[in-house]
Amino acid sequence: MKRYLKHIIKALVLSGMILNGTCSMAAGAKISDATQACLGCHESVTPGIVADWKSGRHSKTTIEDALKKPALERRISIDKVPQGMSGIVIGCAECHMINPAAHKDTFEHNGFKVHVVVTPADCAECHPVERDEYSKNIMSRAYGNLVNNPLYHSLMDSVNGVATFDGKKAVIGKPGQITQDDSCLYCHGTKVEVKGMKTINTSMGEMKFPELSGWPSVGVGRINPDGTNGSCTSCHPRHAFSIEVARKPATCSECHKGPDVPAYKVYSVSKHGNIYAAAESKWNFDAVPWKIGEDFTAPTCATCHISLLVSKGGEVVAKRTHQMSDRLPYRLFGLIYSAAQPKSPDTTIIRNKAGLPLPTELTGEPAAAFLIDARELAARKAKMEAVCLACHAQQWVDGHFARLDESIKTTNEMTLAATKILLAAWDRGLAMGLAQHDSIFNEAIEKMWAEEWLFYANSTRFATAMGGADYGVFADGRWAMSRNIQKMSDWLKFLAAAHKDLHGKAGKNKH
Amino acid sequence: MKRYLKHIIKALVLSGMILNGTCSMAAGAKISDATQACLGCHESVTPGIVADWKSGRHSKTTIEDALKKPALERRISIDKVPQGMSGIVIGCAECHMINPAAHKDTFEHNGFKVHVVVTPADCAECHPVERDEYSKNIMSRAYGNLVNNPLYHSLMDSVNGVATFDGKKAVIGKPGQITQDDSCLYCHGTKVEVKGMKTINTSMGEMKFPELSGWPSVGVGRINPDGTNGSCTSCHPRHAFSIEVARKPATCSECHKGPDVPAYKVYSVSKHGNIYAAAESKWNFDAVPWKIGEDFTAPTCATCHISLLVSKGGEVVAKRTHQMSDRLPYRLFGLIYSAAQPKSPDTTIIRNKAGLPLPTELTGEPAAAFLIDARELAARKAKMEAVCLACHAQQWVDGHFARLDESIKTTNEMTLAATKILLAAWDRGLAMGLAQHDSIFNEAIEKMWAEEWLFYANSTRFATAMGGADYGVFADGRWAMSRNIQKMSDWLKFLAAAHKDLHGKAGKNKH
Amino acid sequence: MKRYLKHIIKALVLSGMILNGTCSMAAGAKISDATQACLGCHESVTPGIVADWKSGRHSKTTIEDALKKPALERRISIDKVPQGMSGIVIGCAECHMINPAAHKDTFEHNGFKVHVVVTPADCAECHPVERDEYSKNIMSRAYGNLVNNPLYHSLMDSVNGVATFDGKKAVIGKPGQITQDDSCLYCHGTKVEVKGMKTINTSMGEMKFPELSGWPSVGVGRINPDGTNGSCTSCHPRHAFSIEVARKPATCSECHKGPDVPAYKVYSVSKHGNIYAAAESKWNFDAVPWKIGEDFTAPTCATCHISLLVSKGGEVVAKRTHQMSDRLPYRLFGLIYSAAQPKSPDTTIIRNKAGLPLPTELTGEPAAAFLIDARELAARKAKMEAVCLACHAQQWVDGHFARLDESIKTTNEMTLAATKILLAAWDRGLAMGLAQHDSIFNEAIEKMWAEEWLFYANSTRFATAMGGADYGVFADGRWAMSRNIQKMSDWLKFLAAAHKDLHGKAGKNKH
Repeated sequence: MKRYLKHIIKALVLSGMILNGTCSMAAGAKISDATQACLGCHESVTPGIVADWKSGRHSKTTIEDALKKPALERRISIDKVPQGMSGIVIGCAECHMINPAAHKDTFEHNGFKVHVVVTPADCAECHPVERDEYSKNIMSRAYGNLVNNPLYHSLMDSVNGVATFDGKKAVIGKPGQITQDDSCLYCHGTKVEVKGMKTINTSMGEMKFPELSGWPSVGVGRINPDGTNGSCTSCHPRHAFSIEVARKPATCSECHKGPDVPAYKVYSVSKHGNIYAAAESKWNFDAVPWKIGEDFTAPTCATCHISLLVSKGGEVVAKRTHQMSDRLPYRLFGLIYSAAQPKSPDTTIIRNKAGLPLPTELTGEPAAAFLIDARELAARKAKMEAVCLACHAQQWVDGHFARLDESIKTTNEMTLAATKILLAAWDRGLAMGLAQHDSIFNEAIEKMWAEEWLFYANSTRFATAMGGADYGVFADGRWAMSRNIQKMSDWLKFLAAAHKDLHGKAGKNKH
Repeated sequence: MKRYLKHIIKALVLSGMILNGTCSMAAGAKISDATQACLGCHESVTPGIVADWKSGRHSKTTIEDALKKPALERRISIDKVPQGMSGIVIGCAECHMINPAAHKDTFEHNGFKVHVVVTPADCAECHPVERDEYSKNIMSRAYGNLVNNPLYHSLMDSVNGVATFDGKKAVIGKPGQITQDDSCLYCHGTKVEVKGMKTINTSMGEMKFPELSGWPSVGVGRINPDGTNGSCTSCHPRHAFSIEVARKPATCSECHKGPDVPAYKVYSVSKHGNIYAAAESKWNFDAVPWKIGEDFTAPTCATCHISLLVSKGGEVVAKRTHQMSDRLPYRLFGLIYSAAQPKSPDTTIIRNKAGLPLPTELTGEPAAAFLIDARELAARKAKMEAVCLACHAQQWVDGHFARLDESIKTTNEMTLAATKILLAAWDRGLAMGLAQHDSIFNEAIEKMWAEEWLFYANSTRFATAMGGADYGVFADGRWAMSRNIQKMSDWLKFLAAAHKDLHGKAGKNKH
Repeated sequence: MKRYLKHIIKALVLSGMILNGTCSMAAGAKISDATQACLGCHESVTPGIVADWKSGRHSKTTIEDALKKPALERRISIDKVPQGMSGIVIGCAECHMINPAAHKDTFEHNGFKVHVVVTPADCAECHPVERDEYSKNIMSRAYGNLVNNPLYHSLMDSVNGVATFDGKKAVIGKPGQITQDDSCLYCHGTKVEVKGMKTINTSMGEMKFPELSGWPSVGVGRINPDGTNGSCTSCHPRHAFSIEVARKPATCSECHKGPDVPAYKVYSVSKHGNIYAAAESKWNFDAVPWKIGEDFTAPTCATCHISLLVSKGGEVVAKRTHQMSDRLPYRLFGLIYSAAQPKSPDTTIIRNKAGLPLPTELTGEPAAAFLIDARELAARKAKMEAVCLACHAQQWVDGHFARLDESIKTTNEMTLAATKILLAAWDRGLAMGLAQHDSIFNEAIEKMWAEEWLFYANSTRFATAMGGADYGVFADGRWAMSRNIQKMSDWLKFLAAAHKDLHGKAGKNKH
């Protein structure tokens, strides 16, 4: 009920401001001349952008004001006002005109040097710690980790290539770049490069703009024209950049809802997600730091993985992190076998003993040299447990993590069984695999194998990790793992029978 | 924050009314005698209906008051008060007793001539423009376009028929009407006809009512007892008829969430849907016209497809339309191959060169004579782009639509590959198809083929069109398109081997 | 609008309390000394729990105050204050220290006798009627009904066992207890037993706690250390125990969203769910009794299945029930064939004519002696109809239930067709079934059969029962039922061809 009072007070305060005819900007704050110039046209050209920006904190706060707050309450990670930023709010120009020389997409626009793509380097002007942390986040490497890893690149090609049927066989062609950008790279991030200049017919007449490849793009590992990786707007959607939005699970669902990584779905049927759905309208998503029990009564994604959390008394329960993996001992998804987190966010450097760019062997043993060691693993687990323990007893938490260990173990074993069926298919010449230098993702039985780990084992581990049981049972969980293995086993027999029907004898790959 | 003030002012105004003991109806407005008579019983017989109606605008507003508003703010599309509607609010009688002779379900009810099914003709008394637009909307023809198109009718039969297994083969029987009404026609709309009169034991004793076929029914293309098509309550649920409900995506999800048309799911993982989920509690869903950036900061389904949108300054960005397709160049779903929108909402008139009731050939070429031409297509695209451009730069929008073109092209190519596999099955006598005058939806390989376009290609195109990437990748997207083709290719081989096992030689359909 | 006024009044009242420096507890109420002692440490050790409790009704209300309310408004079902509970709010000690001798997990904790697992027997101190009703609810037996029914136990084993592939066949091993607890028993409830004492390193130093099996656990049929069944916190999440949460559908979604029981999904695309999603922020989820049309304008799960409902005038439309099945004539899910509700919540006592622990024969005929009779069935249907009739006319309701009857009939027929294919596979030696004393869930074709009823027939029936059409059509509905039967039919042929390929002749099971 206290929150309604809060609203009333706010409203009364606000009404005074409105009656006085002043705007809702911070007292003494002002919009820079350059930003004012942008607004001059864009208020009518792109009214949605301007209105969104006005609703956000950037349009109302100067860095001086932000620095007056106690350290724990700050949303910026600098100690003094950057040059030229004094006394002004953060508007169009402050982001789109900063360091023009560094941006290959800087262009002349009505007398200003403007760049289209705002990058982590720009945001780091005020948020350098967040940028640095994010650069250690595997998400910042999502483009390269997919495109520059030959095995994952071939998975991507097998997903996006157009098939043709020649009467005997369906062959998957090479996909075009537009499709790659619109598919896997939508979340992973595209490569945005300046391809020249382009005249565009706008509502203000013809104007020249840099022509960008891979555009639009808000993927987490976007390669930017200034050479940086990442896109802060993936989770902090422009131009309000609201912390409320980033803290709500819908933001994460954009890339974490599909069968390959059903984190959002699992959350939504967990006890945490249940309380969120029923009670979140009474929570405070704007408070920094975020007070456990007072600002919210059940965690969102951000609570466990990112946010600065304090107890009601103000003690820090968890430090803010944009690395995210520093509260995560294991990688649960996207891998054939779940394993410890990689040491480097650049996973293209990993090679297992068989020389494959994978953090485990095809039979599951970890490529330990490239993964965090037991001590680091324990340290990360302890950080996550600190969050759990704010609401749960130690024994509850211990029981939870024991289940996670078991879930990782058993799902890896199921993947091994599926892998052995696939190896048999390759060995018997009923499918073309590594030995034949063929894609391991382009035949039906290979795709069934990929779903074993990419969909079902992943889903089961998430269900355990976040307490959303059905995703570990009937909704792409253990039921699907088991069903898929039985189907693969039958499919192998069917392939053998069909092969003999066509060739008069069982096949055998020469290798 | 302004909105809280608004609520306070509203509340204070309202409290005055309550203290004065007056009801919440508009000053001077009154309930008609006929409606008052209805309320006399129904307030206790069906309290939920009455309470819902009281919460809505119809119970509080006279047409005179509605006409006092400036044109852009009006929710009705007439210029003067219809006869007999002067000075009264819109209650039970104003809809359920209008034009009694036109309604075959009109019956004598406690001294009044009442009809059960309120139809677009009734709503058109005050909303004629909306009714006319909706009659051009393909949704208003959803019943006939399914039932009277032999190919789609056979799809419906193959879904709803009960199967029996005779030891060799599973045969699909003819479905009953109740199942058709409860299944496909739940969304498409049933045929509601008066079958006679029926005595029903009610809480007020025995009463006679017209016996209706296909009832209950709120499908968008319902065939009404007065001969009209459609049901406004599909999206404006009675008896509050709230514009807020119609503008929220949950309304559309009722019929647009399944794998055949996953618009809602795609939206929910798009950036637009993400912002909606996180911020909508602060938006104003009631304002007419709807101000971009002020009333909302990201679009819902209604924003892009239906609503009257204005910029903060009041300029019209998009006119209201209940045709919906007038901002849509292409049909993305429900078709074997995506194609331009049809000229007529009645798609049963379409015939391709092969004589099939389809807007494309089985190999994908459009039946151009029945589809909108390039100029109309460009005009519709421009209307949609106007909405995009309120928040996005032209280059962003161009990139988006280039992806949509590519997505339509590649998904159509994937459907062609699947179609060729099916044609091979028919040709080799491993399945019974068009040439054998058999349903093309009743065998396993045919159903796999249908899923290629009905689920996966559709899903992929939606994912592109609305920026919900995973539905174009792993969640029924490109991964599923590719996997399905490889499975169909193997299935064809398995069918051949099984056929030889049973018949000693490869099959061959005679045709 | 009235609700904003309500909030303002509440807020003003509240602000007075805050200004006076009093706490938000009921006047004269006090926290017991034992609870005060708990809070002394736990406010800092587990701040989330304490803050959650403080936000709830238990922390603010004495039983005396609760008893002052009129009967219909009470949330407790006792008539006088239990011994020792006078004048105090319900805190930690009142639940965790009650009847220590009855709880095997009672342990010495800083001078108090505390038990970890609060059970229905503890809650029954103030809520005995709800406990008694719940004990008749099949959910309270969810553990035993799964674990102690040999057929369902073998289903559970086939889901959770780890598979191995020996080059010919994939064999499913016996699952470990941790996996069972983390999978099916997560919702059904685990068996929580005291395994001894355990020293745990807490933030307050080393302490001894009872070591619990099957922990964590919030499943609905949990076997508690005091010998009781069930867990009230499954739906009333601790430690706020808010009625709002229990009344919102997200709570039910925790266990009712997967393909085996998609009640939540169906609701979410129903007209009821649509109105809920769009309008619920304006509803009152806290009112007891719950007023139709005033407190809410469309039902949630709780409305139809549990809550005490009254009309605006205060007449009781439906009595509160925690048995739930007393408004339900049929069981729609979890069964091979849908049938009438069982007489006893303990379904392990059921035997069909074939001696199987199933409420129907394998061919669908009900094991009538164990199921409610026609009169009881009609009585339960009438209770549900009373809820429907608050907003719908009798003919609408009759049409709805006629569809449900047809849906049950046709889905059962589809299951019969699938069953006949499976019987043929067993009979021809192409799979190992009942006659071979093998699991009926461990081969691919058996798993396909299980999905026919466990996923698709269930989903279709739910779609009919709750008006969420697509789950009866393309989203795991009739389309999937039909497709699955055609696939099973082909699979049978493929198995035969593969069998001949391997063995030179068609197989035949000896039995």
